[in-house]
Amino acid sequence: MRRIKCTIAYDGTHFAGYQIQQQKRTVQGELEHALSIIHKGQFVRVYASGRTDATVHAYGQVIHFDTPLAIPDEKWPKALNALLPDDVIVKEASEVPPSFHARFSVKKKEYRYRVWIGEKNVFLRHYVYHYPYKLHVTAMNEALRYVIGTHDFTSFCSAKTEIDDKVRTIYEAEVIQEGEELIFRLVGNGFLYNMVRIIVGTVLEVGRGERRAEEMKTILQQKNRSAAGKTAPGHGLYLWHVSYDN
Amino acid sequence: MRRIKCTIAYDGTHFAGYQIQQQKRTVQGELEHALSIIHKGQFVRVYASGRTDATVHAYGQVIHFDTPLAIPDEKWPKALNALLPDDVIVKEASEVPPSFHARFSVKKKEYRYRVWIGEKNVFLRHYVYHYPYKLHVTAMNEALRYVIGTHDFTSFCSAKTEIDDKVRTIYEAEVIQEGEELIFRLVGNGFLYNMVRIIVGTVLEVGRGERRAEEMKTILQQKNRSAAGKTAPGHGLYLWHVSYDN
Repeated sequence: MRRIKCTIAYDGTHFAGYQIQQQKRTVQGELEHALSIIHKGQFVRVYASGRTDATVHAYGQVIHFDTPLAIPDEKWPKALNALLPDDVIVKEASEVPPSFHARFSVKKKEYRYRVWIGEKNVFLRHYVYHYPYKLHVTAMNEALRYVIGTHDFTSFCSAKTEIDDKVRTIYEAEVIQEGEELIFRLVGNGFLYNMVRIIVGTVLEVGRGERRAEEMKTILQQKNRSAAGKTAPGHGLYLWHVSYDN
Repeated sequence: MRRIKCTIAYDGTHFAGYQIQQQKRTVQGELEHALSIIHKGQFVRVYASGRTDATVHAYGQVIHFDTPLAIPDEKWPKALNALLPDDVIVKEASEVPPSFHARFSVKKKEYRYRVWIGEKNVFLRHYVYHYPYKLHVTAMNEALRYVIGTHDFTSFCSAKTEIDDKVRTIYEAEVIQEGEELIFRLVGNGFLYNMVRIIVGTVLEVGRGERRAEEMKTILQQKNRSAAGKTAPGHGLYLWHVSYDN
């Protein structure tokens, strides 16, 4: 068996999320369906770097699967894209050693979150969070500096999270304004459920002057989801890049 | 009765076009439906600057309608947007004299056409024409210069066109490269059926080196649709702006 690693992108608008669910349209479901056709009906399990929720997009999600087929690396994207719907695309593929695992070998992940502060725009409705308020970008960057480093992110994850260890390390956290768009960038060794969306939602409240930037510190200390702000909607979020060793 | 002029935008992806058709989802149908609710069931006819085809977008379409209601200008967008689906938006509204007509008073129209020459991008699939070839931008601008001025555009309109007078004046025609995107801009006093899409399709063939720029001149002279190139797909096209006197 060969292990194939693929970088994929998807428009999350019409998916019930990445992970397979009965009777729902999912990215994993589409990938496994395309692979089963290539494997003449044989089921092929796909493993991703992590799941994404309904309406959340991916620009650089990573998956792997095992195959007995000797298809050269550069042919895999063409073979899969011919069978996939037009809202998922395989950008590249390469054979990796069997020790590689799309989820367990992750070193870093980058998420981006797009906020649109201009007039409502029909062309962006599925791709940015429309938040038409005057925002203080410097204060938001000041707030984001408090999440950089190793912290217990209990306050910034969904109360439904079942994982016990809520300590994660954030390497980079910033927001950049480009015209009427704000782009949040968060890079970390891992993210808890809804973590980026709760950080963004809280930092937007800082941007509007409803909270002070320093509150981020006390929110972290409280280890209580209700201390933080609203969860920003899924359709502004992008799993941007996943890094592995070399 | 008051006459209200509105500037609207729509994402053409899920519409069978602007103009009302039985059993189809159309922009006009959605507008007239919203207006009939505001008018307590009374039918209100909407007139546009012109129709757009299925999948074609509008960033600045103009419509008008007559109403007995004394709603202030700035309240019309809110009232209509509350009733419209999220792929159509009324950007602004103003009362105009009864001599104004969205179609017959048009002075100029600007269309844009977006071409994506980079790698296939799932987020742009409904909004740009993916044409991943090396293109000679200077040659394309040279080709576009031949359409500027007053010409008989028989060669650049659908053979189905029923209008007899095929003479139109083009004031501006250019293509600009922005990274991996090419943006065509055409400004004229009017456009025939499929005219922008056939001009773009033909000019792209010049960009690929399949035709010389000078051929545009002989194509115009032939007054024959089959002399020109392919019709570029609808989803790259935007009705960008409609101008009226003052």
